[in-house]
Amino acid sequence: MQKKSDGSTYAPKGKQERVVESGTFKVGVIGLDHGHIYGMCNGLSEAGADILIVYDNDKSKIDAFIEKFPSAKAANCEEDVLNADVNMIASAAIASHRAQIGIKAMKCGKHFFADKPSITTLSDLEEVRQTCNKTGKRFFTYFSERLHVEASVFAEKIIKEGKIGRVINVMGWGPHRVGPEENRPAWFWNEDEYGGTITDIGCHQIEQIFFYSGAKNGKVVSSRKANYNHKNHPSFQDFADANLEFDNGCTGYFRVDWFTPSGLGAWGDGRTLIIGTEGYIEIRKYIDIANSSEGDHVYYVDNEGEHHICAAGKAGYPFFGKMILDCINGSDNAMSQDYILRVMEMAITAQQNAKVIEQ
Amino acid sequence: MQKKSDGSTYAPKGKQERVVESGTFKVGVIGLDHGHIYGMCNGLSEAGADILIVYDNDKSKIDAFIEKFPSAKAANCEEDVLNADVNMIASAAIASHRAQIGIKAMKCGKHFFADKPSITTLSDLEEVRQTCNKTGKRFFTYFSERLHVEASVFAEKIIKEGKIGRVINVMGWGPHRVGPEENRPAWFWNEDEYGGTITDIGCHQIEQIFFYSGAKNGKVVSSRKANYNHKNHPSFQDFADANLEFDNGCTGYFRVDWFTPSGLGAWGDGRTLIIGTEGYIEIRKYIDIANSSEGDHVYYVDNEGEHHICAAGKAGYPFFGKMILDCINGSDNAMSQDYILRVMEMAITAQQNAKVIEQ
Repeated sequence: MQKKSDGSTYAPKGKQERVVESGTFKVGVIGLDHGHIYGMCNGLSEAGADILIVYDNDKSKIDAFIEKFPSAKAANCEEDVLNADVNMIASAAIASHRAQIGIKAMKCGKHFFADKPSITTLSDLEEVRQTCNKTGKRFFTYFSERLHVEASVFAEKIIKEGKIGRVINVMGWGPHRVGPEENRPAWFWNEDEYGGTITDIGCHQIEQIFFYSGAKNGKVVSSRKANYNHKNHPSFQDFADANLEFDNGCTGYFRVDWFTPSGLGAWGDGRTLIIGTEGYIEIRKYIDIANSSEGDHVYYVDNEGEHHICAAGKAGYPFFGKMILDCINGSDNAMSQDYILRVMEMAITAQQNAKVIEQ
Repeated sequence: MQKKSDGSTYAPKGKQERVVESGTFKVGVIGLDHGHIYGMCNGLSEAGADILIVYDNDKSKIDAFIEKFPSAKAANCEEDVLNADVNMIASAAIASHRAQIGIKAMKCGKHFFADKPSITTLSDLEEVRQTCNKTGKRFFTYFSERLHVEASVFAEKIIKEGKIGRVINVMGWGPHRVGPEENRPAWFWNEDEYGGTITDIGCHQIEQIFFYSGAKNGKVVSSRKANYNHKNHPSFQDFADANLEFDNGCTGYFRVDWFTPSGLGAWGDGRTLIIGTEGYIEIRKYIDIANSSEGDHVYYVDNEGEHHICAAGKAGYPFFGKMILDCINGSDNAMSQDYILRVMEMAITAQQNAKVIEQ
């Protein structure tokens, strides 16, 4: 079972589904500022990658990482990882640093895989785009709320089977728990570093809504942000929401917040609701309140009846294997580069344009 | 147990909680076009009102009504009800006719109680407002999704007790089932008569979000409408959503649609989600998918834990008794006139301003 009380250390473990032999796909790591690096490296390892080298400016974080991934050796500096014999560099550095690490990685001939938000400014986004084009390397992003949740993976299957007809509206709730403030690093509270709440945790929602919409393109038509209850951190936003519209007529809405009450048995009651012309799907990702303390629940209702599937152990996490094979083969099965950059562009733009709700 | 497969005949029955002796508060009925009249009259009867006279231009509807409410006698024309010795006239006529019936009723010295949407145009709204002011009579609206759902009544109590802190966001889903098209009257499909989907079923959502926000005033800041799958009825909208903002900083969003799949054991999986700074409430009104075929479920999570209450038989429907006493005493405990008219104004304006989603 996954530890679900704290989102920043939520690192799902799945089945080994190796797509490559050991020694084929080597990974280096730069930046351990966010605990998501463990989920990222779990996914890579389970798909057959070797985690070989790691750097962070905090030696104790390197030690902790090597304890979990003993195949990795400590590097003395970032350059040692950039120049190592690896195919990909993964990073969960401070959010605002990730894009530049990725640009350096690609220029050193490595594919890149960053925690979300992988990019926090439009100028970095443009530079990433140009560097992808120039180097032919890939810049992936860990949209874990879909890629690393089996219920979300399972929902994709239900839609593809046509069970809910045409998708017309997708709604996401992304509540998160702050936890004890002293456990959060200084950059967590500073918009220039964490990117703002829509860029940071809203990009998950945008990615999911975009994905399930099945559209080719879309936009955020309005967004709002607020700091209701964390006034001691004036550049933090504890609430945001947004409306989306897609080129196939699908609409979307999401809400993200930092108000998970301490009585909830998970770090957040994250859900996705997908409305189709013939039925609907509700994904209860991390918990099913008053029903199950475990997550990965897919509820769907179609013209046949009401259905409940616990997707844990059933759907797996196919993204990681596909990402590795895309890097090796130049294929495009995991997630297209245009899509990743478009999602981040939508998130950053929505963050910049968000109306501030007066409190 | 309530019949929940068809929303148009959903007519909750509750406990007798008489606030007046028989013979004190007399009610006449004009217009039986929508089955909600049964819920309205159940609520009035249970609170002690006497349903004494009824008119509709369809004699068979009068007969069916009298079978359920044998205390009512058939009137020969609308005027007979308007001039009868009654304190209130209730109406579930075609939506676009309700306001004018109400205006006539108030001018004849009667209070008025209409199914939602009680008003469908801004000019009718202004005339209703003026007539209320001039006559001193009340124009009530049956916002059944809050007033006639015990889970919704119970949620009010939880908020008042402070269990979820300050309310910062309220979200509503109002899916409905069309059912066999031939069972729907012609006016159901004609926007000029049913009022448009935001005016019609969206006004429920606006009322609920406004109420739970605890705000004094608010506005709909954006709205969208679409006809995805009922092209044979070009002036019907089978989907709408909207964003709200309130003067206390609370935000809101709702989605309404006509896509309840036939496999659901209720006419709609109506829910309300109320987010507070210290916890949240989820109301599962008519069904709890794959958990309970009965409704009235309140789930709430606070800093103490996760809680589930089935509010059926616990909360009652206090609105009806309060409405009767407000009419008798000139008090203002059920729902203020300004609030009712403001809700309808928000709904009609949102309907008019809604962006049409291209399909």
